[in-house]
Amino acid sequence: MKKVAVIMGSDSDFPVVKGAITQLKKFGVPFEARVMSAHRTPAAAEEFARTAEENGFGVIIAAAGKAAHLGGVLAAQTVLPVIGLPIKSSFCDGLDSLLSIVQMPSGIPVATVGVGAADNAGLLAVQMLSLSDEGLAQRLRDYKAEMAASVMKKDENLQMEVAKL
Amino acid sequence: MKKVAVIMGSDSDFPVVKGAITQLKKFGVPFEARVMSAHRTPAAAEEFARTAEENGFGVIIAAAGKAAHLGGVLAAQTVLPVIGLPIKSSFCDGLDSLLSIVQMPSGIPVATVGVGAADNAGLLAVQMLSLSDEGLAQRLRDYKAEMAASVMKKDENLQMEVAKL
Amino acid sequence: MKKVAVIMGSDSDFPVVKGAITQLKKFGVPFEARVMSAHRTPAAAEEFARTAEENGFGVIIAAAGKAAHLGGVLAAQTVLPVIGLPIKSSFCDGLDSLLSIVQMPSGIPVATVGVGAADNAGLLAVQMLSLSDEGLAQRLRDYKAEMAASVMKKDENLQMEVAKL
Amino acid sequence: MKKVAVIMGSDSDFPVVKGAITQLKKFGVPFEARVMSAHRTPAAAEEFARTAEENGFGVIIAAAGKAAHLGGVLAAQTVLPVIGLPIKSSFCDGLDSLLSIVQMPSGIPVATVGVGAADNAGLLAVQMLSLSDEGLAQRLRDYKAEMAASVMKKDENLQMEVAKL
Amino acid sequence: MKKVAVIMGSDSDFPVVKGAITQLKKFGVPFEARVMSAHRTPAAAEEFARTAEENGFGVIIAAAGKAAHLGGVLAAQTVLPVIGLPIKSSFCDGLDSLLSIVQMPSGIPVATVGVGAADNAGLLAVQMLSLSDEGLAQRLRDYKAEMAASVMKKDENLQMEVAKL
Amino acid sequence: MKKVAVIMGSDSDFPVVKGAITQLKKFGVPFEARVMSAHRTPAAAEEFARTAEENGFGVIIAAAGKAAHLGGVLAAQTVLPVIGLPIKSSFCDGLDSLLSIVQMPSGIPVATVGVGAADNAGLLAVQMLSLSDEGLAQRLRDYKAEMAASVMKKDENLQMEVAKL
Amino acid sequence: MKKVAVIMGSDSDFPVVKGAITQLKKFGVPFEARVMSAHRTPAAAEEFARTAEENGFGVIIAAAGKAAHLGGVLAAQTVLPVIGLPIKSSFCDGLDSLLSIVQMPSGIPVATVGVGAADNAGLLAVQMLSLSDEGLAQRLRDYKAEMAASVMKKDENLQMEVAKL
Amino acid sequence: MKKVAVIMGSDSDFPVVKGAITQLKKFGVPFEARVMSAHRTPAAAEEFARTAEENGFGVIIAAAGKAAHLGGVLAAQTVLPVIGLPIKSSFCDGLDSLLSIVQMPSGIPVATVGVGAADNAGLLAVQMLSLSDEGLAQRLRDYKAEMAASVMKKDENLQMEVAKL
Repeated sequence: MKKVAVIMGSDSDFPVVKGAITQLKKFGVPFEARVMSAHRTPAAAEEFARTAEENGFGVIIAAAGKAAHLGGVLAAQTVLPVIGLPIKSSFCDGLDSLLSIVQMPSGIPVATVGVGAADNAGLLAVQMLSLSDEGLAQRLRDYKAEMAASVMKKDENLQMEVAKL
Repeated sequence: MKKVAVIMGSDSDFPVVKGAITQLKKFGVPFEARVMSAHRTPAAAEEFARTAEENGFGVIIAAAGKAAHLGGVLAAQTVLPVIGLPIKSSFCDGLDSLLSIVQMPSGIPVATVGVGAADNAGLLAVQMLSLSDEGLAQRLRDYKAEMAASVMKKDENLQMEVAKL
Repeated sequence: MKKVAVIMGSDSDFPVVKGAITQLKKFGVPFEARVMSAHRTPAAAEEFARTAEENGFGVIIAAAGKAAHLGGVLAAQTVLPVIGLPIKSSFCDGLDSLLSIVQMPSGIPVATVGVGAADNAGLLAVQMLSLSDEGLAQRLRDYKAEMAASVMKKDENLQMEVAKL
Repeated sequence: MKKVAVIMGSDSDFPVVKGAITQLKKFGVPFEARVMSAHRTPAAAEEFARTAEENGFGVIIAAAGKAAHLGGVLAAQTVLPVIGLPIKSSFCDGLDSLLSIVQMPSGIPVATVGVGAADNAGLLAVQMLSLSDEGLAQRLRDYKAEMAASVMKKDENLQMEVAKL
Repeated sequence: MKKVAVIMGSDSDFPVVKGAITQLKKFGVPFEARVMSAHRTPAAAEEFARTAEENGFGVIIAAAGKAAHLGGVLAAQTVLPVIGLPIKSSFCDGLDSLLSIVQMPSGIPVATVGVGAADNAGLLAVQMLSLSDEGLAQRLRDYKAEMAASVMKKDENLQMEVAKL
Repeated sequence: MKKVAVIMGSDSDFPVVKGAITQLKKFGVPFEARVMSAHRTPAAAEEFARTAEENGFGVIIAAAGKAAHLGGVLAAQTVLPVIGLPIKSSFCDGLDSLLSIVQMPSGIPVATVGVGAADNAGLLAVQMLSLSDEGLAQRLRDYKAEMAASVMKKDENLQMEVAKL
Repeated sequence: MKKVAVIMGSDSDFPVVKGAITQLKKFGVPFEARVMSAHRTPAAAEEFARTAEENGFGVIIAAAGKAAHLGGVLAAQTVLPVIGLPIKSSFCDGLDSLLSIVQMPSGIPVATVGVGAADNAGLLAVQMLSLSDEGLAQRLRDYKAEMAASVMKKDENLQMEVAKL
Repeated sequence: MKKVAVIMGSDSDFPVVKGAITQLKKFGVPFEARVMSAHRTPAAAEEFARTAEENGFGVIIAAAGKAAHLGGVLAAQTVLPVIGLPIKSSFCDGLDSLLSIVQMPSGIPVATVGVGAADNAGLLAVQMLSLSDEGLAQRLRDYKAEMAASVMKKDENLQMEVAKL
C-alpha cells in the first residue's frame, strides 16, 4: 500500500496534526510524519516532495499555520494529491492559513480541509487510497456505519436527559 | 478507468464548472456532468451519491454557491472522495460558499479548492485517479512541465516588453 | 398544539441549545429534542423531516456549528418553517455556521437567529405557533411586558449604583 | 387569512423586495407593502407594528440595508414573527445589514433570511401562515415538487449540452 | 451646563460604560446614566430621546452590543448629537455592534467611537460641550498636555528598562 | 458662528466629500474645504489643526481612504471635535479606512460616520454647532420633519405602484 | 548600484506591477523584471533567489495574487530584503494575497506593502538602497517635497472649485 | 553602523516589541527604543522622525495597535525605510492595526510585517542594514543555516516521538 506523508511546518503543530495520524493508524495505512518548513528548510521540503512518488508515497498531508505555504510548495514538486490542513495560530482563528492554502493558483490544487480538521485530513487521505483498495473502502464504509450508530446512541441519551429536565 | 462525477447545484454554475470538465477531457478521464441540488432535489442527490461507487465513479466534484451544502450532502452518502468547488455568487466573493464547504465536521471531509477554481477541481480529481494509473500520472507530469515552459516563455516575453519601456 | 422539534447536529451543542428548550417549557409548548446529523445520520434526518408534519410537528429548530448543513437538509424535506440556530465552534465566532445557515438558495428558506441565540430560536418558534393560538400570543405579550419591567428595574438599580460613584 | 406586511426602509429597496411580493401573490396570500423607516419615520413604524396584530397581520417582513434597525424596531412592538431581509447596499455585500438584523439580543428574535433573498422572505412568511392553513401547506408542497421537476429538467438539458462539448 | 445622557442597552454593559462616566466626572460635566433598551423598553427610550433637549441634555451616549440599534433609535427622536459606543459581546470582537452603529442611513448620523472605547465616548461628549464652554476647552487642553507628559515619562522609563537588558 | 473645516486627504475624495458641503450650505453653516494629507503635507495638516480653534473653527471633518490617518493626526493637535469620514477606495469597501479611523486609542476620539456617509458627516457637524445655536437646532428639527414627510410620500407612491402589480 | 529584482507570479500581474518599475526608472535604480512562479517554476524561482545576491541584486520585489507564496519562497533562499506586493485577483479585494504575504512565520520576514500598491513597493526598494547611497536619499527627499507641493497645488484648486459652488 | 529606532506607541506594547530588540542585540545592531505616540506626543514623534537620519538612524521600526498611525506619521517625515509592526489589541486579532499600517497611500510606504511579528521586524531591519554591511549579511546567512538545522533536529525528534505512538 502507498504511504501517506504527514508533513507539518513546525513541531508546534503536532498536537493538532496527531489527529490525522490517529486516523491513519486506525485504518492501517502506513505513513511517515515529518517536520519540514517551506521557509526554513526549503531544500528538504523540495527534495521530499520531488521524490515522494518514487519513495512509495501516495498522498501528502501538509499542515501549516499563518502564511501557510507548505502545501503549495510541496504540490509544486509532485503530481501526488496534496491535502492542506490549515493550523490556527494567532490571527482570526486561522483565516490567514485557510486562505493561504485553499486559494492556490490554477494548475496546482491543494485539497483543503477545515481549520484544524486533522482527522478529516487523515480520512481524506484514506479515501484517496481506497480508490484502488477495496479493503480500505470497506473499512471506510464500516467507519461511516459506526459514526451513524454513535450519533443514534447519543440521540437516545439526549432524549433521556431532556426527559429529566 | 473510474469516472468523475461533476455535480453542480444549479445550471447557472455551469460557466464556471466548465473549467473542470475541460481538464477532465484534456486528460482523457471519463466523466458525467449533472445538475442536482442538495435542497431542491435531495432524493436525487442522495441516490446518486449512494450508488456512485457501484456505478463506476471514483471521484465526485460538487460545485455550489451561497450556503453550499451539496458537497457535504453527497459526502454523507459515499466513501468516495468528494471535491468541493465553492462558487462565487453575490456575498463577499464566495466566502459563504467557501466556509460552507471547507468547514465540514469531523468524519466527513470535503476536499476544497479555491473559490471558482474549477480547473483545480478537475486536476485534483485527475491526481486522485492517477494514484492507480501510471499513464495518467505521466500526463500530469507532462502537464506540469508544459506549465513551467509556458511561464518561462511568458518570462522571456515580459523581459522584452520591459526592455522597450 | 403542534410540537416543536429541537434538532441538534451534535450532543456537544446541547449546553447552548438548552436555552431554546427552556423557552419552550416556559411557554408550555410541547417539543422533542433530538441529535441528528446531516452528515453522519443523513437517512434519519431526512426521514424525520419528511414525516415531521404528519407526526404533529409545527416548527423545526435546527442547531449546528461549522459548515452547518442541518437546517438546509431538513428544510429540503418539509414545508414546515425551519429555524436555524448557528452554533459557535472554533472559527471566527461561528461566522462559518452563520453563513452556512442564512445564505440558503432561493426556494428553501431557513429562518436564522443570531449565533448561539438559542432562547431567540425558542421564542421564534413560539411566535410562529401563536399565530393560531391566542393563549400563546397572550403569554408572549406578558413576556414582553415582563422584560420591559425587568429592564426598568435594572435602570433604577443602575441609577442608584451610579449615584454612589 | 392573515395578511403579510412587507415593510421596507427605503423605496430604493423595492426592486429587491419585489421578489417577496411575487411569492405572496403566487401563493394567494394577502399583503400590504409599505415604506417606513426606523430612523426617519419612527412613530409610523412604531404605530404600525404595535397595531399590526389587531389590523389583521400575521407576519411582518422588514427589509433594510446598512445599519438595518427596521426589523428590530418593529419586533420590539409586536409578538408577531418578524422576518428580516438584509439588503445589500454599499459595504461588504450587505454584511453590515446582515449582522444588524440577525444578531438581535435575547428576547426579541428576528427571523433572518439571506442577503437580498426576498423570495425566501416571502416563502418563509407563507410557511408560517400555512401552519394553520392546510390549503397553503398543500400549495407549498406543490411548489417544492415543481422546483424539483425544474431542476431535473435543467439536469437533462445540461447533460445534452455537455454531450456536445 | 448641558448634561450628558449615558444610555446603555443592558446593565451588563456597565463595567465598560463606566469609563465614559469616569471621564465626565473628571471634567465636571453633569450626566445621567440609564439602562434603556431599543427592543425591550422602546417606549422609554423613545420618550427619553424625544424630551432630552428640553430636559437639559446636550449630548447622548448610547452603548450597546450585538445588533446595536440603541444609538439609531435615540438619534431618530432628537437633533442632539448621539455618540455610539459599540460593546463587544460574543461575535467577532464587536464587529456586529460596530457595523450596526456606524453604518447609519443618510440623515441620521451616530458619532461612533471604537469598540469598547468608553473613555473616548466620554471625551467626545466633553469636546462637543466645550464648543460653547471655554473652561471646558481649557481643561481638555490641559488633559492633552498631561497625556503627553505621561507618555514622555513612560518613554524615559522604557529607555531605562531597555538599557538594563 | 463657528466654521466647519472640511479636510480631505486627496482631491480624488471630493466627489464623495461634496455631500458634506451640500449639507453645510443647506444649513447656512460657514465652512472651508481643504486638501491636506497626513502623510504628504504633514506640516500643513499639523499647523491647520493646531490653529483651527483660534481661526474660528468649531468642528473638523476629516475624510480619507485606505490607511486613513488624517482624522487622528488632526485630532492629535486640537481639542475641537473631529469627525472622521471613511472613504471607500479599493479594499473591502473601505473596511481599511473605517478601522483606521474609528479604532482610535484612548484619549483621542474621532467621531466616525459610515463609509462614504458624507451627508451624515455634515449633519453631525451641524448638530454639534446647534448645541449653542437654537436657530440651527430649529432648522435640524425642520429637516427631520421634512425627511419624515418625504418618506411618507414615498410610502404612498409605493402603495400605488404595488396596487398596480 | 545594486539592482532591484521585480518578480511577478504571472504576467497578468504586469499592469499593476508596472507601477513599481515606473518608480525605479524615475529614481534611476537598475532593475530586472521577471515572471516566475513559486508553484509552476519553483526551480527557477529558487535558483534566482539563491543567486540574487551574487548576481548584483540588493532588493527583491515579489508580486503575486491569491495564495501568494512567491515572496515567502524567495525569502526562504536569500538574506536580501524581500518586498511583498499583494495583487488583487478575485477574492475579497486581495485579502487572500495580503494575508498569504504578510503573515510570514518567525525568521523569514517579507516587507509587505498595501494591496496593489506597486509604486510603494518600488519606493520602498529605493529607500532601502538609499541607506548607502546619499544621491538616492536626496532624490527621495526631493520627491517628498514634490509630493507636498503637488498636494498644496491641489488644495488651492479645490478651494477655487468650492468657492464656485 | 547605522542605528535602528524601535518606536512603540505605548509602553504596553513592550512585551511584544521586545522580540525585535532581541534580534537586534543578537546581530549586534545598535538601536534605541522609545515610546512615542502619533496622537499623544505628535510633536515628539514628528521631531524624532525628521531628525532620525542626521541622528544616525538607518531604519525605524514602528509598533502600534488599534488605529495604528505611528508608522505612517513617522514615514511622513523621513526617507528612511519604516517597518510597521501591527500589535494585536482587542479587535479581530489586530486586523485594525494591520490594515491601518499596510494600506498606506501612494508615495509613503510602510514595510509591514505580520501581526505581533516583532522578531521579523527586527530581522527585516537587519536585512536592510546588511545591504551595505557584508559582516551582517554573513551573520544572516549563518542564522538561516541555524534555523534550518534546528528544524531538522525537530524533525528527527518528531519521528522518534511518532515511532512510539
